[in-house]
Amino acid sequence: MHATSSRHPFDEAIALETIGEDRWRGSTHPDYRNMVGPYGGITAAVALAAVLAHPQCQGDPVAQTVHFAAPVADGPFEMHARPIRTNRSSQHWLVEMRQGEVIPVFGTAVTALERDTWEATDVIFPQVPPASALASLDTNVLPLPWIQRYDMRFVRGMIGQDPDPAHPSESLLWVRDEPPRPLDFIALASLCDVFFPRLYLRRPRRVPIGTVTLTTYFHASEAMLAQVGDAHVLGIARGLHYGKGFFDQRAEIWSPEGKLLASSTQLVYFKE
Amino acid sequence: MHATSSRHPFDEAIALETIGEDRWRGSTHPDYRNMVGPYGGITAAVALAAVLAHPQCQGDPVAQTVHFAAPVADGPFEMHARPIRTNRSSQHWLVEMRQGEVIPVFGTAVTALERDTWEATDVIFPQVPPASALASLDTNVLPLPWIQRYDMRFVRGMIGQDPDPAHPSESLLWVRDEPPRPLDFIALASLCDVFFPRLYLRRPRRVPIGTVTLTTYFHASEAMLAQVGDAHVLGIARGLHYGKGFFDQRAEIWSPEGKLLASSTQLVYFKE
Repeated sequence: MHATSSRHPFDEAIALETIGEDRWRGSTHPDYRNMVGPYGGITAAVALAAVLAHPQCQGDPVAQTVHFAAPVADGPFEMHARPIRTNRSSQHWLVEMRQGEVIPVFGTAVTALERDTWEATDVIFPQVPPASALASLDTNVLPLPWIQRYDMRFVRGMIGQDPDPAHPSESLLWVRDEPPRPLDFIALASLCDVFFPRLYLRRPRRVPIGTVTLTTYFHASEAMLAQVGDAHVLGIARGLHYGKGFFDQRAEIWSPEGKLLASSTQLVYFKE
Repeated sequence: MHATSSRHPFDEAIALETIGEDRWRGSTHPDYRNMVGPYGGITAAVALAAVLAHPQCQGDPVAQTVHFAAPVADGPFEMHARPIRTNRSSQHWLVEMRQGEVIPVFGTAVTALERDTWEATDVIFPQVPPASALASLDTNVLPLPWIQRYDMRFVRGMIGQDPDPAHPSESLLWVRDEPPRPLDFIALASLCDVFFPRLYLRRPRRVPIGTVTLTTYFHASEAMLAQVGDAHVLGIARGLHYGKGFFDQRAEIWSPEGKLLASSTQLVYFKE
Protein backbone atom coordinates (compact mmCIF):
# COMPACT_ATOMS: atom_id res chain seq x y z
CA MET A 1 0.00 0.00 0.00
CA HIS A 2 2.68 2.43 0.99
CA ALA A 3 4.74 1.65 -2.08
CA THR A 4 2.06 3.03 -4.35
CA SER A 5 1.92 6.37 -2.53
CA SER A 6 3.57 9.37 -4.12
CA ARG A 7 4.71 10.63 -0.72
CA HIS A 8 8.13 9.80 0.66
CA PRO A 9 7.86 6.99 3.24
CA PHE A 10 9.47 9.34 5.78
CA ASP A 11 6.64 11.85 5.31
CA GLU A 12 4.10 9.06 5.62
CA ALA A 13 5.77 7.85 8.83
CA ILE A 14 5.74 11.29 10.51
CA ALA A 15 2.23 12.26 9.31
CA LEU A 16 0.03 13.46 12.19
CA GLU A 17 -3.68 14.17 12.16
CA THR A 18 -4.84 16.87 14.57
CA ILE A 19 -7.38 15.61 17.13
CA GLY A 20 -7.14 18.54 19.60
CA GLU A 21 -5.04 21.63 20.37
CA ASP A 22 -2.24 19.59 21.94
CA ARG A 23 -3.04 16.18 20.45
CA TRP A 24 -2.42 14.34 17.22
CA ARG A 25 -2.97 10.84 15.88
CA GLY A 26 -0.34 8.92 13.95
CA SER A 27 0.66 5.37 13.16
CA THR A 28 3.85 3.35 13.03
CA HIS A 29 5.04 2.70 9.47
CA PRO A 30 6.17 -0.73 8.21
CA ASP A 31 9.06 0.83 6.26
CA TYR A 32 10.70 2.03 9.50
CA ARG A 33 10.21 -1.13 11.51
CA ASN A 34 13.18 -2.22 13.64
CA MET A 35 13.88 -5.49 15.46
CA VAL A 36 11.09 -4.72 17.95
CA GLY A 37 8.77 -1.82 17.13
CA PRO A 38 9.84 1.20 15.06
CA TYR A 39 13.36 2.53 14.50
CA GLY A 40 14.14 4.99 17.33
CA GLY A 41 14.99 7.77 14.92
CA ILE A 42 11.54 7.76 13.35
CA THR A 43 10.01 7.94 16.83
CA ALA A 44 12.20 10.95 17.65
CA ALA A 45 11.09 12.47 14.34
CA VAL A 46 7.40 11.99 15.18
CA ALA A 47 7.92 13.57 18.61
CA LEU A 48 9.57 16.60 16.99
CA ALA A 49 6.85 16.75 14.31
CA ALA A 50 4.22 17.06 17.06
CA VAL A 51 6.07 20.04 18.58
CA LEU A 52 6.47 21.76 15.22
CA ALA A 53 2.80 21.12 14.37
CA HIS A 54 1.64 22.91 17.51
CA PRO A 55 -0.15 26.19 16.70
CA GLN A 56 1.83 27.98 19.45
CA CYS A 57 5.23 26.74 18.31
CA GLN A 58 7.78 29.52 17.76
CA GLY A 59 11.03 29.07 15.89
CA ASP A 60 13.07 26.03 14.98
CA PRO A 61 14.27 23.10 17.11
CA VAL A 62 17.53 23.61 19.01
CA ALA A 63 17.32 20.64 21.41
CA GLN A 64 15.40 17.42 21.82
CA THR A 65 15.46 14.61 24.39
CA VAL A 66 13.47 11.42 23.79
CA HIS A 67 12.91 8.68 26.37
CA PHE A 68 12.13 5.23 25.05
CA ALA A 69 10.26 4.05 28.12
CA ALA A 70 8.47 0.97 26.80
CA PRO A 71 8.18 -0.86 23.47
CA VAL A 72 6.11 1.02 20.86
CA ALA A 73 3.41 -1.35 19.57
CA ASP A 74 2.94 -1.53 15.79
CA GLY A 75 -0.16 0.48 14.91
CA PRO A 76 -1.82 3.77 15.90
CA PHE A 77 -0.63 6.15 18.61
CA GLU A 78 -1.50 9.57 19.98
CA MET A 79 1.07 12.34 20.37
CA HIS A 80 0.60 15.02 23.03
CA ALA A 81 2.80 18.13 23.00
CA ARG A 82 2.53 21.32 25.02
CA PRO A 83 4.74 24.30 25.73
CA ILE A 84 5.89 24.31 29.36
CA ARG A 85 7.41 27.76 29.06
CA THR A 86 7.52 30.42 26.35
CA ASN A 87 10.31 32.99 26.64
CA ARG A 88 11.01 35.94 24.36
CA SER A 89 13.09 33.92 21.90
CA SER A 90 12.80 30.28 23.08
CA GLN A 91 10.21 27.71 24.07
CA HIS A 92 10.46 24.56 26.22
CA TRP A 93 8.25 21.60 25.33
CA LEU A 94 6.97 18.38 26.85
CA VAL A 95 5.94 15.58 24.47
CA GLU A 96 4.32 12.20 25.03
CA MET A 97 3.34 9.28 22.84
CA ARG A 98 0.35 7.33 24.14
CA GLN A 99 -0.93 3.93 23.15
CA GLY A 100 -4.00 3.23 25.32
CA GLU A 101 -2.87 3.62 28.92
CA VAL A 102 0.81 3.18 28.08
CA ILE A 103 3.27 6.05 27.52
CA PRO A 104 5.96 4.20 25.53
CA VAL A 105 7.78 7.43 24.60
CA PHE A 106 8.07 10.87 26.16
CA GLY A 107 10.53 13.69 26.09
CA THR A 108 11.34 17.34 25.86
CA ALA A 109 12.34 19.88 23.25
CA VAL A 110 13.50 23.46 22.92
CA THR A 111 12.61 25.64 19.96
CA ALA A 112 14.04 29.10 19.37
CA LEU A 113 13.78 32.01 16.98
CA GLU A 114 16.89 32.11 14.83
CA ARG A 115 19.31 34.80 15.98
CA ASP A 116 22.37 36.03 14.14
CA THR A 117 25.38 35.75 16.47
CA TRP A 118 29.08 34.99 16.58
CA GLU A 119 29.87 31.57 15.11
CA ALA A 120 32.69 29.10 15.61
CA THR A 121 33.18 25.34 15.59
CA ASP A 122 35.72 23.59 17.84
CA VAL A 123 35.23 20.03 16.60
CA ILE A 124 37.17 19.17 13.47
CA PHE A 125 35.51 18.00 10.25
CA PRO A 126 37.42 14.84 9.35
CA GLN A 127 39.25 14.28 6.08
CA VAL A 128 37.16 11.74 4.22
CA PRO A 129 36.52 10.72 0.62
CA PRO A 130 33.29 12.12 -0.83
CA ALA A 131 30.12 10.04 -0.75
CA SER A 132 30.37 9.57 -4.53
CA ALA A 133 33.66 7.68 -4.07
CA LEU A 134 32.18 5.10 -1.73
CA ALA A 135 29.90 2.11 -2.16
CA SER A 136 26.47 1.96 -0.56
CA LEU A 137 25.97 -0.56 2.23
CA ASP A 138 24.06 -3.58 0.97
CA THR A 139 21.03 -3.13 3.22
CA ASN A 140 19.61 -6.50 2.23
CA VAL A 141 22.23 -8.12 4.47
CA LEU A 142 20.36 -6.89 7.53
CA PRO A 143 16.75 -7.95 8.03
CA LEU A 144 15.66 -4.57 9.43
CA PRO A 145 13.24 -2.58 7.24
CA TRP A 146 14.39 0.87 8.47
CA ILE A 147 17.96 0.35 7.25
CA GLN A 148 16.64 0.24 3.68
CA ARG A 149 15.26 3.74 4.20
CA TYR A 150 18.82 5.08 4.40
CA ASP A 151 21.66 5.07 1.90
CA MET A 152 24.77 4.47 4.06
CA ARG A 153 28.29 4.71 2.68
CA PHE A 154 30.85 3.74 5.29
CA VAL A 155 34.23 5.47 5.36
CA ARG A 156 35.11 3.18 8.26
CA GLY A 157 33.62 1.52 11.31
CA MET A 158 31.04 -0.81 9.79
CA ILE A 159 30.17 -3.70 12.10
CA GLY A 160 32.50 -6.60 11.34
CA GLN A 161 35.29 -4.45 9.88
CA ASP A 162 38.61 -4.21 11.69
CA PRO A 163 38.31 -1.27 14.08
CA ASP A 164 40.72 1.66 14.32
CA PRO A 165 42.74 0.63 17.45
CA ALA A 166 42.79 4.25 18.68
CA HIS A 167 39.00 4.55 18.29
CA PRO A 168 37.61 1.02 18.56
CA SER A 169 33.98 2.13 18.47
CA GLU A 170 34.17 4.90 15.88
CA SER A 171 32.13 4.94 12.68
CA LEU A 172 32.27 7.46 9.85
CA LEU A 173 29.65 7.26 7.16
CA TRP A 174 27.89 9.35 4.54
CA VAL A 175 24.16 8.92 4.88
CA ARG A 176 20.92 10.24 3.40
CA ASP A 177 17.28 9.22 3.17
CA GLU A 178 16.50 6.50 0.64
CA PRO A 179 14.94 7.52 -1.71
CA PRO A 180 16.57 10.97 -1.47
CA ARG A 181 14.54 13.63 0.37
CA PRO A 182 15.47 17.26 1.13
CA LEU A 183 16.89 17.51 4.66
CA ASP A 184 14.80 19.27 7.31
CA PHE A 185 14.92 19.39 11.12
CA ILE A 186 12.63 16.38 11.49
CA ALA A 187 14.75 14.23 9.17
CA LEU A 188 17.88 15.44 10.98
CA ALA A 189 16.37 14.32 14.31
CA SER A 190 15.89 10.86 12.82
CA LEU A 191 19.39 10.75 11.30
CA CYS A 192 20.96 11.25 14.74
CA ASP A 193 19.84 7.72 15.67
CA VAL A 194 21.13 6.09 12.48
CA PHE A 195 24.35 4.78 14.04
CA PHE A 196 24.44 1.10 14.89
CA PRO A 197 24.89 0.30 18.58
CA ARG A 198 28.56 0.77 19.45
CA LEU A 199 28.43 -2.43 21.51
CA TYR A 200 28.16 -4.44 18.27
CA LEU A 201 31.42 -2.88 17.04
CA ARG A 202 33.19 -3.72 20.28
CA ARG A 203 31.86 -7.23 20.83
CA PRO A 204 30.92 -9.72 18.12
CA ARG A 205 28.28 -11.20 20.42
CA ARG A 206 24.69 -10.08 19.65
CA VAL A 207 22.62 -9.34 22.75
CA PRO A 208 19.29 -7.46 22.96
CA ILE A 209 19.83 -3.69 23.13
CA GLY A 210 17.56 -0.66 23.10
CA THR A 211 18.07 3.08 23.28
CA VAL A 212 16.84 4.36 26.64
CA THR A 213 17.24 8.10 26.07
CA LEU A 214 18.48 10.19 23.14
CA THR A 215 19.45 13.88 23.21
CA THR A 216 20.15 15.96 20.11
CA TYR A 217 21.23 19.58 19.73
CA PHE A 218 20.43 21.19 16.37
CA HIS A 219 23.10 23.59 15.12
CA ALA A 220 21.73 23.79 11.57
CA SER A 221 19.83 26.82 10.35
CA GLU A 222 17.07 26.66 7.74
CA ALA A 223 19.57 28.03 5.22
CA MET A 224 22.13 25.32 6.01
CA LEU A 225 19.50 22.60 5.61
CA ALA A 226 18.40 24.08 2.27
CA GLN A 227 22.03 24.09 1.15
CA VAL A 228 22.36 20.37 1.98
CA GLY A 229 19.18 19.55 0.09
CA ASP A 230 19.03 15.80 -0.51
CA ALA A 231 22.82 15.30 -0.50
CA HIS A 232 24.54 12.86 1.83
CA VAL A 233 25.60 14.17 5.24
CA LEU A 234 28.58 12.87 7.19
CA GLY A 235 27.82 11.03 10.40
CA ILE A 236 30.38 10.22 13.10
CA ALA A 237 29.68 8.11 16.18
CA ARG A 238 31.84 6.95 19.07
CA GLY A 239 31.18 4.91 22.21
CA LEU A 240 32.22 6.10 25.64
CA HIS A 241 31.60 3.52 28.37
CA TYR A 242 29.92 0.11 28.66
CA GLY A 243 28.91 -1.25 32.06
CA LYS A 244 26.05 -1.89 34.50
CA GLY A 245 23.92 -2.93 31.51
CA PHE A 246 24.16 0.43 29.71
CA PHE A 247 26.49 2.18 27.31
CA ASP A 248 26.58 5.68 25.86
CA GLN A 249 27.54 6.87 22.42
CA ARG A 250 27.96 10.36 20.98
CA ALA A 251 27.48 11.45 17.39
CA GLU A 252 27.88 14.42 15.12
CA ILE A 253 26.21 15.11 11.75
CA TRP A 254 28.06 17.36 9.28
CA SER A 255 27.06 18.96 6.00
CA PRO A 256 29.14 17.97 2.93
CA GLU A 257 30.86 21.38 3.20
CA GLY A 258 31.92 20.69 6.79
CA LYS A 259 29.30 22.60 8.76
CA LEU A 260 28.17 20.95 12.00
CA LEU A 261 24.43 20.30 11.66
CA ALA A 262 23.77 18.46 14.92
CA SER A 263 25.42 16.83 17.91
CA SER A 264 23.78 13.95 19.70
CA THR A 265 24.24 11.52 22.56
CA GLN A 266 22.35 8.46 23.69
CA LEU A 267 22.25 5.91 26.49
CA VAL A 268 21.55 2.35 25.42
CA TYR A 269 20.41 -0.64 27.46
CA PHE A 270 22.13 -3.95 26.80
CA LYS A 271 21.23 -7.33 28.19
CA GLU A 272 24.55 -8.61 29.54
CA MET B 1 23.06 31.20 59.70
CA HIS B 2 24.12 28.40 57.42
CA ALA B 3 27.73 28.71 58.56
CA THR B 4 26.78 27.58 62.06
CA SER B 5 25.03 24.45 60.79
CA SER B 6 26.80 21.14 61.16
CA ARG B 7 25.40 19.98 57.83
CA HIS B 8 27.36 20.40 54.60
CA PRO B 9 25.98 23.34 52.59
CA PHE B 10 25.35 20.92 49.70
CA ASP B 11 23.09 18.80 51.93
CA GLU B 12 21.29 21.93 53.09
CA ALA B 13 20.81 23.05 49.47
CA ILE B 14 19.28 19.73 48.33
CA ALA B 15 17.13 19.20 51.45
CA LEU B 16 13.51 18.46 50.56
CA GLU B 17 10.52 18.29 52.88
CA THR B 18 7.76 15.90 51.81
CA ILE B 19 4.40 17.60 51.23
CA GLY B 20 2.69 14.79 49.27
CA GLU B 21 3.42 11.47 47.58
CA ASP B 22 4.95 13.18 44.52
CA ARG B 23 5.71 16.59 46.01
CA TRP B 24 8.42 18.19 48.11
CA ARG B 25 9.28 21.63 49.34
CA GLY B 26 12.79 23.09 49.18
CA SER B 27 14.53 26.42 49.02
CA THR B 28 17.39 27.97 47.09
CA HIS B 29 20.58 28.27 49.16
CA PRO B 30 22.70 31.44 49.31
CA ASP B 31 25.93 29.41 49.18
CA TYR B 32 25.07 28.15 45.67
CA ARG B 33 23.91 31.44 44.22
CA ASN B 34 25.10 32.21 40.68
CA MET B 35 25.00 35.44 38.65
CA VAL B 36 21.19 35.18 38.41
CA GLY B 37 19.47 32.60 40.61
CA PRO B 38 21.13 29.37 41.74
CA TYR B 39 24.06 27.51 40.12
CA GLY B 40 22.59 25.11 37.54
CA GLY B 41 24.35 22.13 39.06
CA ILE B 42 22.59 22.54 42.39
CA THR B 43 19.26 22.73 40.56
CA ALA B 44 20.05 19.49 38.72
CA ALA B 45 20.99 18.00 42.10
CA VAL B 46 17.65 19.03 43.65
CA ALA B 47 15.76 17.55 40.68
CA LEU B 48 17.61 14.25 41.13
CA ALA B 49 17.09 14.36 44.90
CA ALA B 50 13.32 14.54 44.31
CA VAL B 51 13.42 11.41 42.15
CA LEU B 52 15.56 9.50 44.65
CA ALA B 53 13.28 10.60 47.52
CA HIS B 54 10.20 9.15 45.80
CA PRO B 55 8.84 6.12 47.69
CA GLN B 56 8.46 4.18 44.43
CA CYS B 57 11.99 4.89 43.19
CA GLN B 58 13.93 1.77 42.21
CA GLY B 59 17.67 1.67 41.71
CA ASP B 60 20.25 4.34 41.04
CA PRO B 61 20.31 7.17 38.48
CA VAL B 62 21.63 6.30 35.03
CA ALA B 63 20.43 9.38 33.11
CA GLN B 64 19.12 12.86 33.80
CA THR B 65 18.00 15.75 31.58
CA VAL B 66 17.25 19.14 33.11
CA HIS B 67 15.63 22.06 31.27
CA PHE B 68 16.31 25.53 32.64
CA ALA B 69 13.13 27.09 31.27
CA ALA B 70 12.99 30.34 33.27
CA PRO B 71 15.05 32.01 35.99
CA VAL B 72 14.73 30.33 39.41
CA ALA B 73 13.74 32.99 41.95
CA ASP B 74 15.68 33.04 45.23
CA GLY B 75 13.50 31.47 47.89
CA PRO B 76 11.17 28.49 48.28
CA PHE B 77 10.11 26.09 45.54
CA GLU B 78 8.12 22.90 45.14
CA MET B 79 9.50 19.82 43.40
CA HIS B 80 7.15 17.35 41.70
CA ALA B 81 8.46 13.97 40.54
CA ARG B 82 6.58 10.96 39.25
CA PRO B 83 7.44 7.72 37.48
CA ILE B 84 6.13 7.73 33.90
CA ARG B 85 7.04 4.09 33.38
CA THR B 86 8.39 1.31 35.60
CA ASN B 87 10.03 -1.61 33.81
CA ARG B 88 11.57 -4.72 35.33
CA SER B 89 14.96 -3.14 35.91
CA SER B 90 14.53 0.55 34.99
CA GLN B 91 12.25 3.51 35.66
CA HIS B 92 11.59 6.69 33.65
CA TRP B 93 10.80 9.90 35.55
CA LEU B 94 9.33 13.33 34.96
CA VAL B 95 10.38 16.12 37.35
CA GLU B 96 9.22 19.73 37.73
CA MET B 97 10.22 22.64 39.92
CA ARG B 98 7.35 25.05 40.61
CA GLN B 99 7.42 28.55 42.02
CA GLY B 100 3.82 29.75 42.11
CA GLU B 101 2.44 29.39 38.60
CA VAL B 102 5.91 29.27 37.00
CA ILE B 103 7.76 26.06 36.09
CA PRO B 104 11.32 27.41 35.94
CA VAL B 105 12.87 23.94 35.73
CA PHE B 106 11.67 20.57 34.48
CA GLY B 107 13.25 17.42 33.18
CA THR B 108 13.50 13.69 33.05
CA ALA B 109 15.51 10.92 34.63
CA VAL B 110 16.12 7.20 34.36
CA THR B 111 16.92 5.03 37.34
CA ALA B 112 17.92 1.38 37.11
CA LEU B 113 18.75 -1.56 39.30
CA GLU B 114 22.48 -2.22 39.13
CA ARG B 115 23.30 -5.15 36.87
CA ASP B 116 26.62 -6.90 36.53
CA THR B 117 27.60 -6.92 32.84
CA TRP B 118 30.53 -6.67 30.47
CA GLU B 119 32.54 -3.48 31.00
CA ALA B 120 34.79 -1.40 28.77
CA THR B 121 35.71 2.24 28.29
CA ASP B 122 36.57 3.74 24.90
CA VAL B 123 37.43 7.27 26.01
CA ILE B 124 40.97 7.69 27.28
CA PHE B 125 41.79 8.94 30.77
CA PRO B 126 44.31 11.75 30.17
CA GLN B 127 47.78 11.90 31.63
CA VAL B 128 47.63 14.62 34.26
CA PRO B 129 49.48 15.55 37.44
CA PRO B 130 47.63 14.52 40.63
CA ALA B 131 45.39 17.05 42.39
CA SER B 132 47.95 17.30 45.22
CA ALA B 133 50.51 18.72 42.77
CA LEU B 134 48.27 21.60 41.68
CA ALA B 135 47.19 24.86 43.28
CA SER B 136 43.54 25.55 44.06
CA LEU B 137 41.81 28.25 42.05
CA ASP B 138 41.50 31.44 44.05
CA THR B 139 37.70 31.53 44.13
CA ASN B 140 37.67 35.04 45.61
CA VAL B 141 38.57 36.38 42.17
CA LEU B 142 35.08 35.53 40.95
CA PRO B 143 32.09 37.10 42.71
CA LEU B 144 29.92 33.99 42.39
CA PRO B 145 29.09 32.26 45.69
CA TRP B 146 28.75 28.75 44.20
CA ILE B 147 32.34 28.70 42.97
CA GLN B 148 33.51 28.82 46.59
CA ARG B 149 31.64 25.57 47.18
CA TYR B 150 34.11 23.75 44.93
CA ASP B 151 37.85 23.26 45.18
CA MET B 152 39.04 23.53 41.57
CA ARG B 153 42.62 22.71 40.53
CA PHE B 154 43.16 23.44 36.86
CA VAL B 155 45.51 21.27 34.84
CA ARG B 156 44.77 23.55 31.90
CA GLY B 157 41.99 25.57 30.30
CA MET B 158 41.21 28.15 32.98
CA ILE B 159 39.53 31.23 31.53
CA GLY B 160 42.19 33.75 30.57
CA GLN B 161 44.98 31.16 30.16
CA ASP B 162 46.46 30.56 26.71
CA PRO B 163 44.38 27.79 25.13
CA ASP B 164 45.70 24.57 23.61
CA PRO B 165 45.53 25.44 19.87
CA ALA B 166 44.31 21.92 19.03
CA HIS B 167 41.54 22.14 21.66
CA PRO B 168 40.77 25.84 22.11
CA SER B 169 37.82 25.24 24.43
CA GLU B 170 39.16 22.34 26.51
CA SER B 171 39.51 22.44 30.28
CA LEU B 172 40.98 19.79 32.55
CA LEU B 173 40.61 20.23 36.28
CA TRP B 174 40.52 18.29 39.49
CA VAL B 175 37.47 19.24 41.50
CA ARG B 176 35.65 18.31 44.71
CA ASP B 177 33.06 19.82 47.04
CA GLU B 178 34.39 22.49 49.39
CA PRO B 179 34.43 21.60 52.24
CA PRO B 180 35.09 17.97 51.22
CA ARG B 181 32.01 15.71 51.13
CA PRO B 182 31.76 12.02 50.15
CA LEU B 183 30.69 11.75 46.50
CA ASP B 184 27.21 10.42 45.76
CA PHE B 185 24.98 10.47 42.67
CA ILE B 186 23.37 13.78 43.61
CA ALA B 187 26.74 15.50 44.07
CA LEU B 188 27.92 13.95 40.80
CA ALA B 189 24.88 15.44 39.00
CA SER B 190 25.89 18.85 40.31
CA LEU B 191 29.57 18.40 39.38
CA CYS B 192 28.63 17.84 35.73
CA ASP B 193 27.68 21.54 35.51
CA VAL B 194 30.86 22.82 37.19
CA PHE B 195 32.60 23.74 33.91
CA PHE B 196 32.69 27.41 33.01
CA PRO B 197 30.90 28.31 29.77
CA ARG B 198 33.20 27.38 26.88
CA LEU B 199 32.28 30.67 25.18
CA TYR B 200 34.32 32.52 27.81
CA LEU B 201 37.40 30.48 26.88
CA ARG B 202 36.92 31.21 23.19
CA ARG B 203 36.05 34.91 23.40
CA PRO B 204 37.30 37.37 26.03
CA ARG B 205 34.03 39.32 25.74
CA ARG B 206 31.55 38.68 28.56
CA VAL B 207 27.94 38.36 27.40
CA PRO B 208 24.97 36.97 29.34
CA ILE B 209 24.76 33.18 29.06
CA GLY B 210 22.57 30.50 30.59
CA THR B 211 22.32 26.74 30.32
CA VAL B 212 19.14 25.79 28.47
CA THR B 213 19.29 22.02 28.86
CA LEU B 214 21.74 19.63 30.53
CA THR B 215 21.95 15.86 30.07
CA THR B 216 24.08 13.55 32.21
CA TYR B 217 24.65 9.80 32.02
CA PHE B 218 25.84 8.16 35.23
CA HIS B 219 28.34 5.36 34.74
CA ALA B 220 29.40 5.20 38.37
CA SER B 221 28.25 2.41 40.65
CA GLU B 222 27.70 2.84 44.38
CA ALA B 223 30.98 1.00 44.94
CA MET B 224 32.88 3.36 42.62
CA LEU B 225 31.46 6.40 44.40
CA ALA B 226 32.41 4.93 47.78
CA GLN B 227 35.92 4.35 46.48
CA VAL B 228 36.22 8.02 45.44
CA GLY B 229 34.99 9.20 48.83
CA ASP B 230 35.76 12.89 49.22
CA ALA B 231 38.79 12.87 46.88
CA HIS B 232 39.05 15.16 43.86
CA VAL B 233 37.62 13.86 40.58
CA LEU B 234 38.96 14.82 37.16
CA GLY B 235 36.68 16.91 35.00
CA ILE B 236 37.14 17.47 31.26
CA ALA B 237 35.00 19.80 29.15
CA ARG B 238 35.11 20.80 25.47
CA GLY B 239 32.97 23.06 23.31
CA LEU B 240 31.53 21.88 19.99
CA HIS B 241 29.76 24.67 18.09
CA TYR B 242 28.75 28.28 18.72
CA GLY B 243 26.10 29.94 16.56
CA LYS B 244 22.44 31.07 16.35
CA GLY B 245 22.74 32.26 19.97
CA PHE B 246 23.55 28.81 21.41
CA PHE B 247 26.59 26.64 21.98
CA ASP B 248 27.06 23.11 23.25
CA GLN B 249 29.72 21.62 25.45
CA ARG B 250 30.44 18.05 26.48
CA ALA B 251 32.08 16.86 29.68
CA GLU B 252 33.38 13.76 31.40
CA ILE B 253 34.01 13.15 35.09
CA TRP B 254 36.66 10.56 36.05
CA SER B 255 37.65 8.97 39.33
CA PRO B 256 41.26 9.51 40.45
CA GLU B 257 41.97 5.91 39.36
CA GLY B 258 40.71 6.61 35.84
CA LYS B 259 37.20 5.18 35.96
CA LEU B 260 34.58 7.12 33.99
CA LEU B 261 31.95 8.25 36.51
CA ALA B 262 29.71 10.34 34.24
CA SER B 263 29.42 11.85 30.79
CA SER B 264 27.46 15.02 30.22
CA THR B 265 26.41 17.50 27.55
CA GLN B 266 24.67 20.83 27.67
CA LEU B 267 23.26 23.50 25.38
CA VAL B 268 23.86 27.07 26.48
CA TYR B 269 22.14 30.29 25.40
CA PHE B 270 24.35 33.30 24.75
CA LYS B 271 23.27 36.83 24.03
CA GLU B 272 25.23 37.68 20.86
